[in-house]
Amino acid sequence: MRILSITERTVPIQSEIQNAYIDFRKMTVSVVAVMTDVVREGRRVVGYGFNSNGRYGVGGIMRERFIPRLMHAPAEALVTDEGDNFDPHKIWDVLMAGEKPGGHGERSVVVGVLDMAMWDIVAKIEGKPLYRLLADRYREGQFDSAVFVYAAGGYYQPGKDVGALQQEVQEYLDHGYTKVKIKIGGPPLQEDLRRIEAVLKVVGDGQSLAVDANGRFDLKRAIAYADALTPYNLFWYEEAGDPLNYALQAALSQYYPHPMATGENLFSLQDARNLVRYAGLHPNQDFLQFDCALSYGLVEYLRILAMLGDHGWSTRRVIPHGGHQMSLHLAAGLGLGGNESYPGVFWPFGGFADSYAVEGGYVRLPDTPGIGFECKAELYRLLASLSE
Amino acid sequence: MRILSITERTVPIQSEIQNAYIDFRKMTVSVVAVMTDVVREGRRVVGYGFNSNGRYGVGGIMRERFIPRLMHAPAEALVTDEGDNFDPHKIWDVLMAGEKPGGHGERSVVVGVLDMAMWDIVAKIEGKPLYRLLADRYREGQFDSAVFVYAAGGYYQPGKDVGALQQEVQEYLDHGYTKVKIKIGGPPLQEDLRRIEAVLKVVGDGQSLAVDANGRFDLKRAIAYADALTPYNLFWYEEAGDPLNYALQAALSQYYPHPMATGENLFSLQDARNLVRYAGLHPNQDFLQFDCALSYGLVEYLRILAMLGDHGWSTRRVIPHGGHQMSLHLAAGLGLGGNESYPGVFWPFGGFADSYAVEGGYVRLPDTPGIGFECKAELYRLLASLSE
Repeated sequence: MRILSITERTVPIQSEIQNAYIDFRKMTVSVVAVMTDVVREGRRVVGYGFNSNGRYGVGGIMRERFIPRLMHAPAEALVTDEGDNFDPHKIWDVLMAGEKPGGHGERSVVVGVLDMAMWDIVAKIEGKPLYRLLADRYREGQFDSAVFVYAAGGYYQPGKDVGALQQEVQEYLDHGYTKVKIKIGGPPLQEDLRRIEAVLKVVGDGQSLAVDANGRFDLKRAIAYADALTPYNLFWYEEAGDPLNYALQAALSQYYPHPMATGENLFSLQDARNLVRYAGLHPNQDFLQFDCALSYGLVEYLRILAMLGDHGWSTRRVIPHGGHQMSLHLAAGLGLGGNESYPGVFWPFGGFADSYAVEGGYVRLPDTPGIGFECKAELYRLLASLSE
Repeated sequence: MRILSITERTVPIQSEIQNAYIDFRKMTVSVVAVMTDVVREGRRVVGYGFNSNGRYGVGGIMRERFIPRLMHAPAEALVTDEGDNFDPHKIWDVLMAGEKPGGHGERSVVVGVLDMAMWDIVAKIEGKPLYRLLADRYREGQFDSAVFVYAAGGYYQPGKDVGALQQEVQEYLDHGYTKVKIKIGGPPLQEDLRRIEAVLKVVGDGQSLAVDANGRFDLKRAIAYADALTPYNLFWYEEAGDPLNYALQAALSQYYPHPMATGENLFSLQDARNLVRYAGLHPNQDFLQFDCALSYGLVEYLRILAMLGDHGWSTRRVIPHGGHQMSLHLAAGLGLGGNESYPGVFWPFGGFADSYAVEGGYVRLPDTPGIGFECKAELYRLLASLSE
């Protein structure tokens, strides 16, 4: 049982949108296809992976260091002791050999992308959808048959006024979402408040709306927004300050009475643990948004979830960033609180299986073996082009 | 005034050595040449940069994102308001446009390498060695005419016994170094103690020896080493645990009575500030080892030094990792405590200007404009090959 080839490509995720930090017109992602010598149901097993938006493709590092490590490893270093499947934990060790501790960025994306493809393969070889494999391995078979998802949008776009924002949000509700998230922090506070109040008219109440500052605020501005947001009692107030400024978050956690969310820009167990240790977050109230595709994959995510348990956090407080099917499987199979979704943007990566509509804010997963990229036609067309 | 071209190459730093984490046989570094349209003393001004050992070359990301940003920027975005020189601070903003906060690894190396080349250019255009330019800009002209350097070695190598280690250390003393550093944490504690005692016989006393665990220890092993090391009263005990495990460092800082050192694997202002906030280090006793070539360059380093000042740290407690000439200029021009040096390894990057021997543990800098790579023949041959 061995890997025959690994093909990667960097593709643009063309979009006119902007958040408070970046302009997505130049954003790229890496997609990868890992071809194996295993055949299941008459077809060669191929695993696919990609990274979520926001961090660019990482083809250079993948080709320079990580693909060669996998391709040069002896076959037995990549498979279970029984030799009946690939072992993502062993593969992780092979990928990270010769890497120093600290400095968790970019390479964490490479490992996230390759790890995704390997879990796709492992579940295909076992003939199960990934969420069932995870439930069987780590939760005594318990899984969620549908996962809470919220619609992340409300980006800034040239010429987009409050009416267009309301229309966008109405479309999310029409498509079955019950909670939505919009960006804040681009314009001045008063304009953001007008945007928020306009959206509240569409969604009905604060618990149906989250807001995301993308790490833009210093403490003063974060507090000014906290003051202004408090009366709305929002679903959450996300990433007010720099993701590594735990002291800012701790001050804000003391000050702001409602739920907060952060973590999408922390890419390792060590960083996640520092957040939990120092940021003053409330395990009974706040949300953690680590994204396996950016942070060394599911192997590291399992370590993060174990660490969270040690610190008294339920897996239900974890709602990953990224809006991809991989995290949807983690959510269903490991009992997370839900998953982000980008219904309108980051095409063809946003959204889930074509045949499963969001209903009442929840989405079901296909029973196809693996992650089920095959059930998302536009995405699969792109991924399959790598392995042809 | 503009950049005509940027050439980068990934080169191996072939070495049989190992530390407790990595095997350097596969280690690479990126070297870069930035060619300008400026002419000084009849020669075109070209700046050179490279990253320090331990983090691999970053050619892929450099080509994919960072070189295009510099080459596509309007000329005025890269130069001072007066237009009389390039402005590394403005260039930093151009390089980091479209980059999200957090995730400080790899790209921090890219920016470090390009920033080094740009400061080489800026100092060449001003016709000053970089340390004088820094002293003039940031320290009212005050500079150190020689910089403390210590010899970092004592790596593990196949077949290297205690006698060979003693011989290596004796060579450092013979070359003018007064303090040396050796690796610990590869073999069991008792063997490391035999190595330490053997080296102490050569260097004379504990204050002439530092030890470096390269982040390998959990708290239990870190404490066991602390117990064993305490009687030697060493110059410092470096990077006992994972560089991001501030809680481990804080426990150890309380426990171990003598100087400790860390920071080489923290690559941003945010990470450096977290270390200072949470790791319980002693500003009157400990050493910080941030390396500009790995951590967004001198522009970010100036922010880090300012942050350290706000937290009551003197620049004299900073002794950078990396053993390169760039940090030697920072040390002389910004009043740091010294610089690392790799006299025997990482050829041709280790060591400083050819004509300046280390004397009594200090080394002088050449008065050549720029960083003075031109005064290090073997290195310059490599760098110059990029701009031919």
